[in-house]
Amino acid sequence: MRPFKSAKLMRVAIYALSLAFPLRAQVPTAEAIAPSRLNLMPVPASVQTQKGRLPITDSFKVAVSNYSDDRLRAGVARMLARLAGRTVLTLPAVLATDESTATLVVRCERAGDIVPSLDENESYTLDVTDKQARLVAPTVVGALRGLETFLQLLQADRDGYSLPGIRIQDQPRFPWRGLLIDVGRHYEPMEVLKRNLDAMAAVKLNVFHWHLTEDQGFRVESRKLPKLHTLGSDGLFYTQDQVREIIAYARDRGIRVMPEFDIPGHSTSWLVGYPELGSASGPYKIERGAGIFEPALDPTREQTYKFLDTFLGEMAALFPDAYMHIGGDENEGKQWDRNPQIQAFMKEKGIKDNHALQAYFNQRILKILQKHHKKMIGWEEILHPDLPKDAVIHSWRGPASLAEAAKKGYNGILSAGYYIDLMFPASQHYLADPIPQNTSLTAAEEKHVLGGEATMWGEWVSPETIDSRIWPRTAAIAERLWSPRNVTDIDDMYRRLSVISRQLEELGLAHEKNYEMLLRRLATSEDTGPLRTLASIIEPVKEYRRYRMRPQTMLSPLTGLVDAARPDSEMARQFAANVDVFLSDAPRFALYRSDLEHTLAEWQTASRALGPMIDRSPALQEARPLANNLSSIAEAGLEAMSYLSAGNAPTAEWRNVQLARLDEAAKPSAAIEFVVITSVRKLVIAAAELPQLNSTTPAEWKKRVTTMASPAPSTP
Amino acid sequence: MRPFKSAKLMRVAIYALSLAFPLRAQVPTAEAIAPSRLNLMPVPASVQTQKGRLPITDSFKVAVSNYSDDRLRAGVARMLARLAGRTVLTLPAVLATDESTATLVVRCERAGDIVPSLDENESYTLDVTDKQARLVAPTVVGALRGLETFLQLLQADRDGYSLPGIRIQDQPRFPWRGLLIDVGRHYEPMEVLKRNLDAMAAVKLNVFHWHLTEDQGFRVESRKLPKLHTLGSDGLFYTQDQVREIIAYARDRGIRVMPEFDIPGHSTSWLVGYPELGSASGPYKIERGAGIFEPALDPTREQTYKFLDTFLGEMAALFPDAYMHIGGDENEGKQWDRNPQIQAFMKEKGIKDNHALQAYFNQRILKILQKHHKKMIGWEEILHPDLPKDAVIHSWRGPASLAEAAKKGYNGILSAGYYIDLMFPASQHYLADPIPQNTSLTAAEEKHVLGGEATMWGEWVSPETIDSRIWPRTAAIAERLWSPRNVTDIDDMYRRLSVISRQLEELGLAHEKNYEMLLRRLATSEDTGPLRTLASIIEPVKEYRRYRMRPQTMLSPLTGLVDAARPDSEMARQFAANVDVFLSDAPRFALYRSDLEHTLAEWQTASRALGPMIDRSPALQEARPLANNLSSIAEAGLEAMSYLSAGNAPTAEWRNVQLARLDEAAKPSAAIEFVVITSVRKLVIAAAELPQLNSTTPAEWKKRVTTMASPAPSTP
Repeated sequence: MRPFKSAKLMRVAIYALSLAFPLRAQVPTAEAIAPSRLNLMPVPASVQTQKGRLPITDSFKVAVSNYSDDRLRAGVARMLARLAGRTVLTLPAVLATDESTATLVVRCERAGDIVPSLDENESYTLDVTDKQARLVAPTVVGALRGLETFLQLLQADRDGYSLPGIRIQDQPRFPWRGLLIDVGRHYEPMEVLKRNLDAMAAVKLNVFHWHLTEDQGFRVESRKLPKLHTLGSDGLFYTQDQVREIIAYARDRGIRVMPEFDIPGHSTSWLVGYPELGSASGPYKIERGAGIFEPALDPTREQTYKFLDTFLGEMAALFPDAYMHIGGDENEGKQWDRNPQIQAFMKEKGIKDNHALQAYFNQRILKILQKHHKKMIGWEEILHPDLPKDAVIHSWRGPASLAEAAKKGYNGILSAGYYIDLMFPASQHYLADPIPQNTSLTAAEEKHVLGGEATMWGEWVSPETIDSRIWPRTAAIAERLWSPRNVTDIDDMYRRLSVISRQLEELGLAHEKNYEMLLRRLATSEDTGPLRTLASIIEPVKEYRRYRMRPQTMLSPLTGLVDAARPDSEMARQFAANVDVFLSDAPRFALYRSDLEHTLAEWQTASRALGPMIDRSPALQEARPLANNLSSIAEAGLEAMSYLSAGNAPTAEWRNVQLARLDEAAKPSAAIEFVVITSVRKLVIAAAELPQLNSTTPAEWKKRVTTMASPAPSTP
Repeated sequence: MRPFKSAKLMRVAIYALSLAFPLRAQVPTAEAIAPSRLNLMPVPASVQTQKGRLPITDSFKVAVSNYSDDRLRAGVARMLARLAGRTVLTLPAVLATDESTATLVVRCERAGDIVPSLDENESYTLDVTDKQARLVAPTVVGALRGLETFLQLLQADRDGYSLPGIRIQDQPRFPWRGLLIDVGRHYEPMEVLKRNLDAMAAVKLNVFHWHLTEDQGFRVESRKLPKLHTLGSDGLFYTQDQVREIIAYARDRGIRVMPEFDIPGHSTSWLVGYPELGSASGPYKIERGAGIFEPALDPTREQTYKFLDTFLGEMAALFPDAYMHIGGDENEGKQWDRNPQIQAFMKEKGIKDNHALQAYFNQRILKILQKHHKKMIGWEEILHPDLPKDAVIHSWRGPASLAEAAKKGYNGILSAGYYIDLMFPASQHYLADPIPQNTSLTAAEEKHVLGGEATMWGEWVSPETIDSRIWPRTAAIAERLWSPRNVTDIDDMYRRLSVISRQLEELGLAHEKNYEMLLRRLATSEDTGPLRTLASIIEPVKEYRRYRMRPQTMLSPLTGLVDAARPDSEMARQFAANVDVFLSDAPRFALYRSDLEHTLAEWQTASRALGPMIDRSPALQEARPLANNLSSIAEAGLEAMSYLSAGNAPTAEWRNVQLARLDEAAKPSAAIEFVVITSVRKLVIAAAELPQLNSTTPAEWKKRVTTMASPAPSTP
């Protein structure tokens, strides 16, 4: 699937997202929710707190009982290193031999699958008393999942570190919980992949979907067809040794590695070295732009299948996973339409359109994969009456195709709703459920829904920024795919997410630290003050608007303010919540008043200080409109608060002027937008509605506050 | 070398450092110093500014004329990527073909040495006019050096990016400018080495001294003697492929890679797999402690030399550099003393003491190295009448041994004064000169001084912290080794260092960003406020006091406050300067008054806020005394300032109480010390001396201010 959508498809995707995101949904929580002082993410299937606490000191010892192997011991060693790093305690490096005196006993039954698989048993129980913690799991992977929970349970107070008394029984809701990383559009170094695998394991994701080929790059070494990577990658590819290294690294963490070779479209980079496979005559060049491109493999020639048999056979031997993803998306067939030989072939075979031609292609690929003992998975476009039932459908345009596939008896996974490159907040992804509560699927059909995958499409990510696009939001998706369906409290999710986000830093994730670094670079100063203030309340524009608003190529630097800015502004979320409380506190308007005034004043100060900073740093020039708008926003907010505090209503003219200024400020610049406009608009409207306050009941006013600025009329 | 010194040797080293660091030396600067608005580091040999400026826009083009090869083109591509990243400009990816329209023309004569060597010509000239920049160099390495200067010249203002009109002629003062990284005590992943090689290239260092073996770890794969790395490394070693990768990476940047295999001492890890080489019977275990250990190879057995011939021969083929470092330091010979066979051997051969026995050993090793076409270099202990003149002496205890070696006709390099693990400020290292102005060497003898190396000993560094121990201070050492001797303005060095430090972040260096990260982890919060305030005015204790004050093993976490704290506090430097200006402004005491009061008040606030933070985070428990002392420091400072501002002298009792509190606060905790005590002490003493102010001339008072608190009497 594809990050660059035609307008029609984009509407579909947005509709799906809006369906999945009822404003501020707070589904009643059940016993499955962990007590609020816990910071578990994903929330386990069942949690019961018990009395007591288990102290964690430098005499902490782990014993492994029953089954043990290198993978388990390495997992324990990693857990110990993280525990030591967090507590600054020197912990014994060797495993305890006496189970009875160990602080933590890990008891496994067996290794589990040699190659991580969809059928792996990932369950575990964790029982913590004031004497000991016992982690019991049928497989090593289950134990690894439990070790992550163990680490998340660490708590601290004046008496030191401890774990709470607790009984956890846990297993995933879905067996397929993935993260796609597109290394085709921008290559990512080995250490970026490794730290992201560590982060995946920390939140119990279990499929690394490695999108290895794109129009913009062919990223895996082929020894049999070396022109693929030598001519198609700018030298930026993974050697087969490196691929094995990643597979081993992932396996050590109970993570499958599923490669994707996207065909017949998205294949320009293949054709640079082998133009004879194309549906139009070459030569081809590595694509530098973003979007959907015409080149497609020629599905009518035997040579194509011979080539793919060779290549996919080589890859089948390299990648041990049972599944191979063949993409299959967004081939618009323009090259096919223009190629007389292809048209003649279709006529001869009675193939009525391009979709049918691609189905023919898929049939042939399926046979090749079967020959090499792989199961086929592809983007939802592969769904076709001729598609055999053992193919898996990867739904990206909306959950409807997933349900449709399930009803037809196909297994499927969901990515619609999990497009993290679209820059939507975690809350939105969090509520996208592969099997929504109102599903029309029968219980038997539900079993065809295997899970889902977050998709990190690579147009606008670099090794410096990719972590901040994936994390922490993907942890919320990981919870959706692991935890019971009724775990949907957004506030509690955000509370835990900020804790987990910090813990991810222990694994080398750079989503926090590169933010400040990029701001320092832009500010050309240690002192990022005003820029940081600005950055805290802006976000990159959503969906695919960046493409249009700030055109770049794959060779452009990703170091601008839009790259430093992150989705899901915590500051904006907090500001919005505080504004609601403040306005609901009518007619006193006292709660959070000084907080809000302080914040608004800080914005005003920052907007003044940004001018000289931008003068010094031409890289920030594009942000000048934002700096100016920040001043409008702050002024509107401060003035509105004065009216509210004094109980004096402003004139209608004032209201209209302010709303117009806010509308102006709401327009994106540099592919960036403010995410506090709605809240400030509320302040302005509330001030203007002061005269009505007397004739409104408190309950009515509270309700009015929540809807005050939405939809936003700029004139009465 | 050795990081853990006996008391006697430590005194020598400290004496050497104190000699090298006359307080606040400001040697008059000559024409070699770049104009103060430039941020070049190291300062070039000759700089002349010219009129005009060369704009840098998205039509920036580079042409390579005359000689060109992959290494040069890769260097240009890296420069372009950094230029693009910093300016957020999309720059053309391909080289320009028309020299006349190029913004930058790079003209080389030849490749230079295939293997980077001591004789490489690194010179270049860079001529920037408002039309074009021309970089001319005899070799590709010279061009790479010039490209770094080019990037450092980038300036910005409201009109955009540009380079100033300038003529630079440049070459290094010394041909050997190195950084030692000890990966024996703590292993460092490949990406840590690579980013440090990038940083080295950025400041024109040219030798990566890879300290590969230690008592605590044997870090290189030996295919011929595999028990060395399999049993001696905990699995943390570099494969030979990885070694080749590092060598190629370094070569691409004009950096030599010199391996060190430290023998006959420092060799415990060798003996884990091959105990038969030891001077005492085994078994041996990988050493976990820090210090000097007894195990040493047995120099009396032929088997030892056969083994070393095999191993060093294998390494000689792996590492192309002309030099091989054989360590040779800190073998105290205790195992030799106790071994009757060794004693008998010495008697038989007429070897009178252990130093002579080691000289015998070195003679044998020298022959092995000669057989494998390597030149020998070792720590200064190898100096002995029998040592052949083509061995190189690595001086670590003081410049005297370097001079002694030079007088005897040996080549030598200096590391005394460049021990960055000792946590001294950059200013101190900066003034340590391999050939001080008062040298007794003749011009001919001076030629034997090849340069120097900063030494990053690895006892207390992890992949998270190592960058902050190396950078930015090592850039000051790099300048010492490259720039003319008279470039010694410390204030200007610090001004440029802070700019260069930020630029190093572009290369992935984590010295800045991991600081905040470690503080977040300790604070268990995004909001590190008070901890950050504390951390800004503390430093790890100097020299080797950490070993004693906060004992740890090589397996301990390096995530404590001492690991987050950095040497060379900028805040303390600034505070000290401001206090001096404030006190010199007698009797008004107005300059910087509000700044200082604000800072001291912030310390007071932070000290109060730290209590609850420490309660939440037991990892910070050890910092509680520091939090309390911060309050004493702030109070003493604020009270002193009130007296000074009011012109009222305090009582002698007040003075004594405050100085006693400051003495108490000056005591390290958690191997950390405050570095603002001297300045606050000045405030207290100045307040107490207010009555004398009337009878003192302004000049006398100013002089008094500089010496007021040094030496620091706690009672009158």
